[in-house]
Amino acid sequence: MADLSRLCIHTITTRPWSIELAVPYFADAGVRGISVWRDALEGRNADTMRHLIERAGLSVTSLARGGFFTAASAADRLHAIEENRRALEECEAVGAPLLVLVCGATPGQTVADNVDQIQEGIEAILEPAESAGIRLGIEPLHPMYADTRSAIATVKMANDLCDRIDSSMVGVTIDVFHCWWDPDLQAEITRAGAAGRLFSYHVCDWKTDMSDMLNDRGLMGEGIIDIRRITSWMDDAGFDGAIEVEIFSTRWWAEDQVSFLNEIIDSYTRCV
Amino acid sequence: MADLSRLCIHTITTRPWSIELAVPYFADAGVRGISVWRDALEGRNADTMRHLIERAGLSVTSLARGGFFTAASAADRLHAIEENRRALEECEAVGAPLLVLVCGATPGQTVADNVDQIQEGIEAILEPAESAGIRLGIEPLHPMYADTRSAIATVKMANDLCDRIDSSMVGVTIDVFHCWWDPDLQAEITRAGAAGRLFSYHVCDWKTDMSDMLNDRGLMGEGIIDIRRITSWMDDAGFDGAIEVEIFSTRWWAEDQVSFLNEIIDSYTRCV
Repeated sequence: MADLSRLCIHTITTRPWSIELAVPYFADAGVRGISVWRDALEGRNADTMRHLIERAGLSVTSLARGGFFTAASAADRLHAIEENRRALEECEAVGAPLLVLVCGATPGQTVADNVDQIQEGIEAILEPAESAGIRLGIEPLHPMYADTRSAIATVKMANDLCDRIDSSMVGVTIDVFHCWWDPDLQAEITRAGAAGRLFSYHVCDWKTDMSDMLNDRGLMGEGIIDIRRITSWMDDAGFDGAIEVEIFSTRWWAEDQVSFLNEIIDSYTRCV
Repeated sequence: MADLSRLCIHTITTRPWSIELAVPYFADAGVRGISVWRDALEGRNADTMRHLIERAGLSVTSLARGGFFTAASAADRLHAIEENRRALEECEAVGAPLLVLVCGATPGQTVADNVDQIQEGIEAILEPAESAGIRLGIEPLHPMYADTRSAIATVKMANDLCDRIDSSMVGVTIDVFHCWWDPDLQAEITRAGAAGRLFSYHVCDWKTDMSDMLNDRGLMGEGIIDIRRITSWMDDAGFDGAIEVEIFSTRWWAEDQVSFLNEIIDSYTRCV
């Protein structure tokens, strides 16, 4: 039987399901971890959701997502920091040991300015993160999102930022979708691992016929990423955490989610 | 009056116009250079087109495009090399001193394998390029095209490849659309300039609401790229060649091309 002991699924992956539906379906399918998106908690008591998840035998891998630290005005940057403090409180409530950061980018600012603001933002939430024992995972996004979502566009940039911040609570989240093209990927995964900074690992696939830059990601095996190879680099770098399936796909969201969940498990077994 | 002495436009930019129409319109508008796409020469005698361009007082900056060297089979890679030899012959015929290379990428191959095949392909056309005095410009494409169009996804990768090939005929083509997000851009432009490898320079813009990954590029000023800043880096690195407007846009192609040409000249003057 397939080994699903490291399989985690993000609530966004099965977006049509409420978290109250996703949890029992994941658990019944043998999935062991869940990453909770903040929208899945909306209008709910996070503590109650924590009990629901625990009783189903799942563990929470991370909360997605914090970040978006950049802004043209100091007031907006302060507002972002406050929002991240709230996200940390949600992490505590729902039992997430990690907050994933999509760091932000503001059009009209230079890359260097964006990176400086991101550093300031992360440093501003370090104290509450440390107090709560919640780690912060900088997720480099694909450069096609460098305009408005993340100035941090490569694993090297994430590692460099970790060096500057220099806290054991701040590390890197690797997503194959964002990083597969990078000739330095293996070296930078190794570097992050050696520094104890490989905090989490997301998988999906890159389709060569993507119809939408955001919401047409592939299920593992539908695209061109050699996921097994990247997983082996993660393994070699000492990562033994969850393998998280995070897929944004209007195509898959339109399907029956029970069938989709079966497909996820099948493709996880074959391709990851 | 605006200084258009460095302004060059690609035939693809005003795609609805045949080259026979583009040439006089460009010339009458005060444009000094033209970059010729191979499809614009289809069914025509390249030598005749050269005379047409010369008589209009334009000079040919480059031919676009060669490359696509990668393939799963040796036979297909040989075929690509032959195609590039034909492109060099077209360069000679139409009077283009530079062949721009979109280097290729084959799904299922590693980045390193793709880069090796690209190096082999370029080395296979070095001799005819040198004989004809035609330079080869490696154009790094944005990483969102790293699946099927170009494994060379950063200026650093292009510079590294130039180092490996080590020929004065092989250099780099910088396109702001592909490279704006890269924190190493200035350093790598400087590196290319110091090595005498800054062969050409393309401008357009990156819109944050891009509806299509390929054919929804912005006119300069419509997007978020600080083009003046990148131009100043090119200047500082010693580049004094043409500034080439290369825009793929179904939106602009649907407009009256005379108005579009006026917009190009206006935005070139304001934003480049």
